[in-house]
Amino acid sequence: MNDITLALDVMGGDFGPRVTIPAIAKALTQKSNLSFLLFGDENQITPLLQKYSLLNHPKIQLHHTEQVIDSDIPFSKAIRQSKNSSMRLAIEAVKEGKALGCISGGNTGALMGLAKLLIEPLPNIERPALTSLIPTTNGKSSVMLDLGANIEVSNYQLQQFAEMGNLFAQVMLDLVYPRLSLLNIGTEENKGKAQLQAVHQLLKHRQDINYIGFIESDKLTNNLTDVIICDGFTGNIALKALEGAAKNLLSLFKKEKADFNICRNTKRYLLKLIFYRYYRKLQEINPDRHNGATLLGLSKVIVKSHGGANANAFYYAIDYAVQQIQSDIPNKILQGLNQSYTK
Amino acid sequence: MNDITLALDVMGGDFGPRVTIPAIAKALTQKSNLSFLLFGDENQITPLLQKYSLLNHPKIQLHHTEQVIDSDIPFSKAIRQSKNSSMRLAIEAVKEGKALGCISGGNTGALMGLAKLLIEPLPNIERPALTSLIPTTNGKSSVMLDLGANIEVSNYQLQQFAEMGNLFAQVMLDLVYPRLSLLNIGTEENKGKAQLQAVHQLLKHRQDINYIGFIESDKLTNNLTDVIICDGFTGNIALKALEGAAKNLLSLFKKEKADFNICRNTKRYLLKLIFYRYYRKLQEINPDRHNGATLLGLSKVIVKSHGGANANAFYYAIDYAVQQIQSDIPNKILQGLNQSYTK
Repeated sequence: MNDITLALDVMGGDFGPRVTIPAIAKALTQKSNLSFLLFGDENQITPLLQKYSLLNHPKIQLHHTEQVIDSDIPFSKAIRQSKNSSMRLAIEAVKEGKALGCISGGNTGALMGLAKLLIEPLPNIERPALTSLIPTTNGKSSVMLDLGANIEVSNYQLQQFAEMGNLFAQVMLDLVYPRLSLLNIGTEENKGKAQLQAVHQLLKHRQDINYIGFIESDKLTNNLTDVIICDGFTGNIALKALEGAAKNLLSLFKKEKADFNICRNTKRYLLKLIFYRYYRKLQEINPDRHNGATLLGLSKVIVKSHGGANANAFYYAIDYAVQQIQSDIPNKILQGLNQSYTK
Repeated sequence: MNDITLALDVMGGDFGPRVTIPAIAKALTQKSNLSFLLFGDENQITPLLQKYSLLNHPKIQLHHTEQVIDSDIPFSKAIRQSKNSSMRLAIEAVKEGKALGCISGGNTGALMGLAKLLIEPLPNIERPALTSLIPTTNGKSSVMLDLGANIEVSNYQLQQFAEMGNLFAQVMLDLVYPRLSLLNIGTEENKGKAQLQAVHQLLKHRQDINYIGFIESDKLTNNLTDVIICDGFTGNIALKALEGAAKNLLSLFKKEKADFNICRNTKRYLLKLIFYRYYRKLQEINPDRHNGATLLGLSKVIVKSHGGANANAFYYAIDYAVQQIQSDIPNKILQGLNQSYTK
């Protein structure tokens, strides 16, 4: 395995270094080929590096930054605020070739804006799209895009999302002919938005992709399709609804677990065994394991972690970046698109 | 309690009379003040009435219809097909005052179209909105609208949804000053769709309602707000994503229950006790209990059941209609709207 250096916006996300540093500690333990360039406030970071025995670690370089982009400001303001910010410097490290990919849990608008400003998009790509793998009930994953980068999109852009999603699924899910679907509020041809009906017709007649029609949002995790295509507003609404439902159900059960841990009776061991069966099932569908959205369509790997991610979830965002770098996703998409454009 | 006669499209939904007849049987047992006018194919219905001991029941009148509106045809075609259909005749019974409300699990577009065609909208209401109560993790409910009646809406229509939702929550949730929120992909003022930002400003400055800002779809079931307002496309995407996640998680656990039921060992009784605790928790958030969406803004109560509803869920759709009729929802909304228009 080749060595991979990643640039990290240590300050991004709701919890900053308290989440990102333990995630790095886990990544360094799990993957021996990783190195990190860290960008953030050394006063906050150093004690945490110490806590996780990472101070002066040979695979960590810390670059002190004082500026952090607020999570709740509009893009235009964020850009003015971005100079010397942890997020911008992390992206610049990728641009300058010092790192192969960047991970941030910070302001999504700023990350996407800066990434588009600093990192070259692939030729012919009009809009990069936030892309994730979502878990399905049979233990597999589906690709979903766009998850929030583009609130409104043109018919042409939706088709590009389909092409990019197709190539992403081929590589990341190891599929020869991934099934593609447009997210809509009905499966019949006449249902839903006029734009979706139009793009449905365009995709249906293409021979180079395996478009299988509309999918509704209650089937997102049923693995009825491999790539779910939508505009960024719709994708964000659908994915967060899914995440919210999963989190709420998990929290009900975690509460049960806490209750259980303090209960004392003679059958405790047995109870634990029973509980474990349920808990393991919940772990399988834990959204933490699918944290990380990539800005597909750029020439480099830029990964957005969920702002509220915990250390475990942030670790999976790092892992998501590593997988894409190892699979050389940007180049695969470039080659794939070129093929389809010369058809 | 006053007597209530309901008109039922027995043929609507994926399973037609196999679901609607047992639901009626349950409703008649639970509520002594109900009578039903049934519309559908007597050849299919009679054996089921017999099965559930409802043949010649004094509170059931069966009207034979041969026509059924297909679930997958566009509205314009459905209207041509609708003459003498079970759905249309059920709605006409309400229009003619023979029934106080109508329930159907059939083609949503046709139901909404026919209801708008046949049932007078309330004065000043531009567009009725599909409205449901959604379960929240603290055991309460929130009102959500629109869930699919209007794919695209104007700023003015979104404000009307807010007003109607406000009045609906006052009555159905027994709240004095319900909290209202717009569904968006961020909670900051500058986030999401331009239309939502504009309506946010309009609602924020109104004194007569308790608008508290944007809500994201991962918080839909957290009871952070009482009324969730959105266009019908967004609402349908969000609600179905929620339903799908809940159903998928429930099915994982129901599978466990089946496994469990066939396991035999000496500790079986204890296992059953443990399982019961978990199962009861799942029942509380079972989406069946919240089946039923009403077309709010009409002068009569028209309820859409989920097409895939089982008998238990369809019973809850009947119950939802009964609650609205007993609370005199259309009249309450009429009075409430008049008040706010004269301000």
